[in-house]
Amino acid sequence: MQETEKLVVGVDAGGQTTKCGVVDARGTILAQTVIRTDNHPTAEPFIKDLADALKLIIAEAKAEGRIRGIGVGAPNGNYYTGTIENAPNLAWGRERVEFSKMLSKAMGGIPVSLTNDANAAAVGEMTYGAAKGMKNFIMITLGTGVGSGIVIDGKVLYGHDGFAGELGHVNIIRNNGRLCGCGRAGCLEAYCSAIGIARTAREWLAASDEPSRLRDIENITSKDIFEAAQEGDELSLKLFDYTGTLLGRAFADFIAFSAPEAIVLFGGLARARKFLEEPIRKAMDDSVLNLWKGKVKLVFSSLKESDAAILGASALAWEL
Amino acid sequence: MQETEKLVVGVDAGGQTTKCGVVDARGTILAQTVIRTDNHPTAEPFIKDLADALKLIIAEAKAEGRIRGIGVGAPNGNYYTGTIENAPNLAWGRERVEFSKMLSKAMGGIPVSLTNDANAAAVGEMTYGAAKGMKNFIMITLGTGVGSGIVIDGKVLYGHDGFAGELGHVNIIRNNGRLCGCGRAGCLEAYCSAIGIARTAREWLAASDEPSRLRDIENITSKDIFEAAQEGDELSLKLFDYTGTLLGRAFADFIAFSAPEAIVLFGGLARARKFLEEPIRKAMDDSVLNLWKGKVKLVFSSLKESDAAILGASALAWEL
Repeated sequence: MQETEKLVVGVDAGGQTTKCGVVDARGTILAQTVIRTDNHPTAEPFIKDLADALKLIIAEAKAEGRIRGIGVGAPNGNYYTGTIENAPNLAWGRERVEFSKMLSKAMGGIPVSLTNDANAAAVGEMTYGAAKGMKNFIMITLGTGVGSGIVIDGKVLYGHDGFAGELGHVNIIRNNGRLCGCGRAGCLEAYCSAIGIARTAREWLAASDEPSRLRDIENITSKDIFEAAQEGDELSLKLFDYTGTLLGRAFADFIAFSAPEAIVLFGGLARARKFLEEPIRKAMDDSVLNLWKGKVKLVFSSLKESDAAILGASALAWEL
Repeated sequence: MQETEKLVVGVDAGGQTTKCGVVDARGTILAQTVIRTDNHPTAEPFIKDLADALKLIIAEAKAEGRIRGIGVGAPNGNYYTGTIENAPNLAWGRERVEFSKMLSKAMGGIPVSLTNDANAAAVGEMTYGAAKGMKNFIMITLGTGVGSGIVIDGKVLYGHDGFAGELGHVNIIRNNGRLCGCGRAGCLEAYCSAIGIARTAREWLAASDEPSRLRDIENITSKDIFEAAQEGDELSLKLFDYTGTLLGRAFADFIAFSAPEAIVLFGGLARARKFLEEPIRKAMDDSVLNLWKGKVKLVFSSLKESDAAILGASALAWEL
């Protein structure tokens, strides 16, 4: 590495913790740290903590004066305005926060680019991961919720107001759909997130007498279902089959929108690839218009889970 | 008009007829003509007829040597490849036709830009119509079928393969959905096209004894339903309410995809604005994520119906 090579900083702000790293052009994290997100009720002291933490890892990476920009992924981060608002998962995110402006100032004017976490993940996949070289793809993050980042002609789709790509909130069950965290009913997220599959498990267990290892567990999580499926638990296998089928049906409609080269999956639940891939692929090909049958790739993220959030956010900064 | 001003040609190829016009930069049609689409089994003689017709209107408009390009809207026209294929509505469109290349050659090398009819309509609205000045909108054509043209950052979305924007074929009725012309079931087009609303009418008339003027009509068309609604026929009013509600629900999901400034409606069925606007608007706002409630415009095309197809196609040529 030349000592004059330009570097970027990636910041992934989650509800509990904020992960930060100094990253080079090949996607190597040269220094990283984690700070608490939830110990300040307002944004000012959090941003001060964040700036202090960033200065430390920049020094550690001997990167002073070489930081081209800071990319930030955060819930409800708006790319156009650089603000975070209506982010109930962030302790200080309920009010409108001029995040980019404040962080840039605290970092001596280094430019800051902000977007939501799923868009950051899409840029990360495109820059360093499974979508390298792709110009048109849809990133779906299967975590606590279902997020999405849509890439069109090599650029993240932000839309008229900066909030495009809320594919976790398209309708998948039209009649008597399950209530979603967004206040509406039948959203994809209410069924196909880590929380959604656990809700399906509880519903199914209550509605039948089918034996299952899951009956012994008190607060079922997606991890429990994954582990039970690993051990051959029939009900758990059916849960993945159902969840994958709903995802595949939704993806068929997404394809009709933007005709992507691939759908890229990322996030905790996507680690259940061995159980999800086949039902997703089948439902997607069964449901999609003939012209796309068998043509759209289904790709699982290749980024190391622990690094992916930082890399995704950092990748934004290369565009600055 | 200066005699040196550059002009374009618009060609709208439909199943029966092909409309052609010479158009100036303000969207004035200087000369136009119509030829038959369906009287040749192969593309070669059709393209010869078309080129002859275009040369006549170019001469009529005194536009020789001033044609910057020819824009063509045609079913299944592919922007990337300049080809038409799998277009069952075109007598010569079942095989792959190198349309752009053949027409350009027949016209002495004038460049040709081809896309499908809904994308052409979107470019037309953006260049001359209701979407003038908009950078992000979704054009929905409500005709015999339901088509769409999606505009992102001022450009039509073509996707990885050139076929993006098949929003008539997203699923709107998941269980026991009606069979669609595409071979699948439950598509938006099967319910909300001119043919779809007539199918709904026939289903409803068969399933109830509700009195309606429509009972006296043999082969009900969307026009019959419109006229009956004009006269206060309750069932016909309910048909528009139902159709508009399905459209509004679908639009809510489209908004979650691309966060457009507006949804623009065009086509024969869109002329029933007085009956469709309210149910669409209500269902759209009831179904959309909170952040977009009341924020996305619903716009009806302002282009003169008879000119719109030519204008839309011609607008493509300005980008050449």
